[in-house]
Amino acid sequence: MKKSIGVIDLGSNTARLVIYEQDDSGMVAEIDNIKYSLRLSNHLRAGRLDEEGVAKTLTAMRQFKKLLDARKVTQAIGVATAAVRQAENGRELTAAIERESGISMRVLSGKEEARYGYLAVLNSMPVDEGITIDIGGGSTEVTYFRDRQLIESHSFPFGIVTLTSQFFREEVPSEEEFAQLRTFLADSLATCPWLANRQCPVIAIGGTARNLGKIHQRQVHYSMDSLHHYPIQADAVTNILNALRRLPLEERRQIPGVSKDRADVILAGMAAFESLLHYAQSDCLLVSNKGLRDGVLYETVWGEQPPASTAIVRERSALQFMNRYQVDQPHSRHVRDLALSLFDQLQQHALHSFGGFERQLLENAALLHDTGRTINVYEASEHTFYLLSNVLMAGYTHRERLLLAMIASYKTNKLAQSQIARHPDLLGKQDKSLVEKLGHLLLFSRVLDRSMTQAISAVRLASTGGEFVLSCTGKQPDLLEYSLLDEPLSKLSKAWKIPLKVVVDA
Amino acid sequence: MKKSIGVIDLGSNTARLVIYEQDDSGMVAEIDNIKYSLRLSNHLRAGRLDEEGVAKTLTAMRQFKKLLDARKVTQAIGVATAAVRQAENGRELTAAIERESGISMRVLSGKEEARYGYLAVLNSMPVDEGITIDIGGGSTEVTYFRDRQLIESHSFPFGIVTLTSQFFREEVPSEEEFAQLRTFLADSLATCPWLANRQCPVIAIGGTARNLGKIHQRQVHYSMDSLHHYPIQADAVTNILNALRRLPLEERRQIPGVSKDRADVILAGMAAFESLLHYAQSDCLLVSNKGLRDGVLYETVWGEQPPASTAIVRERSALQFMNRYQVDQPHSRHVRDLALSLFDQLQQHALHSFGGFERQLLENAALLHDTGRTINVYEASEHTFYLLSNVLMAGYTHRERLLLAMIASYKTNKLAQSQIARHPDLLGKQDKSLVEKLGHLLLFSRVLDRSMTQAISAVRLASTGGEFVLSCTGKQPDLLEYSLLDEPLSKLSKAWKIPLKVVVDA
Repeated sequence: MKKSIGVIDLGSNTARLVIYEQDDSGMVAEIDNIKYSLRLSNHLRAGRLDEEGVAKTLTAMRQFKKLLDARKVTQAIGVATAAVRQAENGRELTAAIERESGISMRVLSGKEEARYGYLAVLNSMPVDEGITIDIGGGSTEVTYFRDRQLIESHSFPFGIVTLTSQFFREEVPSEEEFAQLRTFLADSLATCPWLANRQCPVIAIGGTARNLGKIHQRQVHYSMDSLHHYPIQADAVTNILNALRRLPLEERRQIPGVSKDRADVILAGMAAFESLLHYAQSDCLLVSNKGLRDGVLYETVWGEQPPASTAIVRERSALQFMNRYQVDQPHSRHVRDLALSLFDQLQQHALHSFGGFERQLLENAALLHDTGRTINVYEASEHTFYLLSNVLMAGYTHRERLLLAMIASYKTNKLAQSQIARHPDLLGKQDKSLVEKLGHLLLFSRVLDRSMTQAISAVRLASTGGEFVLSCTGKQPDLLEYSLLDEPLSKLSKAWKIPLKVVVDA
Repeated sequence: MKKSIGVIDLGSNTARLVIYEQDDSGMVAEIDNIKYSLRLSNHLRAGRLDEEGVAKTLTAMRQFKKLLDARKVTQAIGVATAAVRQAENGRELTAAIERESGISMRVLSGKEEARYGYLAVLNSMPVDEGITIDIGGGSTEVTYFRDRQLIESHSFPFGIVTLTSQFFREEVPSEEEFAQLRTFLADSLATCPWLANRQCPVIAIGGTARNLGKIHQRQVHYSMDSLHHYPIQADAVTNILNALRRLPLEERRQIPGVSKDRADVILAGMAAFESLLHYAQSDCLLVSNKGLRDGVLYETVWGEQPPASTAIVRERSALQFMNRYQVDQPHSRHVRDLALSLFDQLQQHALHSFGGFERQLLENAALLHDTGRTINVYEASEHTFYLLSNVLMAGYTHRERLLLAMIASYKTNKLAQSQIARHPDLLGKQDKSLVEKLGHLLLFSRVLDRSMTQAISAVRLASTGGEFVLSCTGKQPDLLEYSLLDEPLSKLSKAWKIPLKVVVDA
């Protein structure tokens, strides 16, 4: 039975409901997502949320409740952040929400909010050390983690909405105003000396970060349509900020990548990223598409601790894809076992020097090689490439994801070359050999289970007189598989430049 | 319960097994496909299939049986064509097949073979009148149909393999040899005077036709990756044939689009197309990806008669896609009803002059608008466009399929423009208005069922004082849907250039 989980994030800028579906093996996928722009920060008057703010919030929550009911969601988790936390009447509001819509809201402390950002990142990105910054409408959370453990965290009581109204009087802030903002940010960061000079990636969470990523991707004509884990050099952040802050609001709004409802407050957020990159002496910002609500979800599903390694993140991702795209799992797991066995035996014969990363690439490519069949059996490998390169897989950089997609969908050398040519900013000629070798290994392993019945249980590689002999142990001597091995074997042999022969060892 | 059907096509050139899965509503999708190149025509010695030919066939059939068992196929339908039909010992072979593999094979008459080609075309292409030609290894079937009814059919006892060995002594046939072949083909066609001067499309079935289509697509850098219903002008067929027939075999093999195992016999097939186009005075050849085995399947599933109209073909295709991509059907059917109701009412108010074709485009786009969600909820409309433009939908030309994909996935005018720009050979600026109008109509209808609960049962359009008022009849006055209508309504109003207003008529 599938189960739906709803997460409601009542933020200072927007309220958002995300609905996830959890499959039998516990894997989750987002299935619906709706938001209302509330700008609660602007409704804080003398420490209290005003009537209009309260009324708008209650309306939004009633609407969310309707969607939760329509989607038959039984577990709904509500969290409220800065605006509600800072408001004297915040608890009155959450009580009213619960009374009127039945949604129970937890008001998060700044520390909790920060930790959810950290959890979102560790559950979805290949990073072991880093700084997170989640800048919302009315607060900004930072954390520092090392060896995947949360070391420090802090919540600043300012966000893009409040910084904008505090520092900028005009649409186009003056140089002086901007300098004042920078000084304020530097002073604020200095209260967290544990951020200084870390020289690790700064991971930016939230709408401002997504906008920044999109702006940069358009500028450089990035070849992928994916934002999560997109890296931007510190210099580029400063350049984009300096260009944008001199534009009138209407022109800023027209910049590709800028959200229309965020153009007025985006500068303050970018300035915060710039200051943090400088203070931490970091040369790279990574955009995270996952944030608070994902952290809340991950905690619900996977518990308070992040996965112990990136390998686990990738494993879960592969399992989620297999479930979602209805892969024949006994088949794909068997192909995985055969491919890894060949990989390991080739290594024992000193026929390659690939390491653990390549082994895991092959493993996950084997598990996912049939995902494209969900779309269609014709051109299935093109569809596999499309799926794996276009749908977010947690735990991979973009480059790694492309390599995974190429190996999983490998068909011909020519196709691989055209895929490389489509991503000149991420792949190069040097990748050809890896993809070709692992691609042919996978193609061969797939034919070893062409009937999808796991009839060939094992392959053993032995070297005899300059030739390598693969003996196959199968259920019977005349399997369908044996009649189809010639072509993939000769291609494998050519790609690896090894004389290979198959014998049946029934 | 899903059911699997296997179709085995024992042809003169190749033997092929295709496995289809039939869903609860009777729709079928191909799930596996395997072939062996047997070249049975070459094993016909003095009217008998030689021992090697028989042995190879029996081996292939045993292998097919293994795949049928592995895939748990209960209904397997075997058909044999020219080589077996022409061989004196054909019945002995089919008896041996049945004995050794349990697959019962029906030896088709030439007329039956021809009729299956016609059935394949009528079940998958938008054509009401045409000539089909299916050229195999050892026979060639032609039919003529009008008003979707089969009028005449014939089977010639020659195919690409036999023509090649009969007329060409060398790899590169001489001008004289080629002239002799052309004369022979013209004389043969003249025995079917019902083909003369029909001036209707010639629909070419089989591997030679697919190769021809691919060659032409590469030459003109065609923007779609789809072969079924690809049109080629008669002149272009002659040009390609004349270029290819002067190349040495090895060079012919290297031409993009030519199958390596077909390069030696392809010329004879192309010459047959050329002669038929000439004799029928037809200026256009359409490539069909569907042939004998699909005809056999369609007969099994849909009966002996073809669908009465292309509209039915499109309906079935839409249903198959909805099942396959797990669309929420109560939702998509409701969106369809709302969109068509708006379309009809706009017409009653003389606000558009679209016809039945556009109405059906909107209908099927509404049914299929959510297919991309199967891939991912993020970028779902991009995925919808990918699916609908890349997976074959029966009953559409390529251009029509693109229009359908664009309307179903419509998000913004900008996105539509970029899609048009990607297909300059099929779409133009004149398509923008249609896509934009129907796209916004669909987007608006989708929001009318945003909760997916069919809470708004009807919309009525009335004109009052220069303004058009849409009254919505819903279950309650404060539906989620109503709170979300402002933006899509204002966009709809702008796209249609009509002042529109919504009132709730609870």
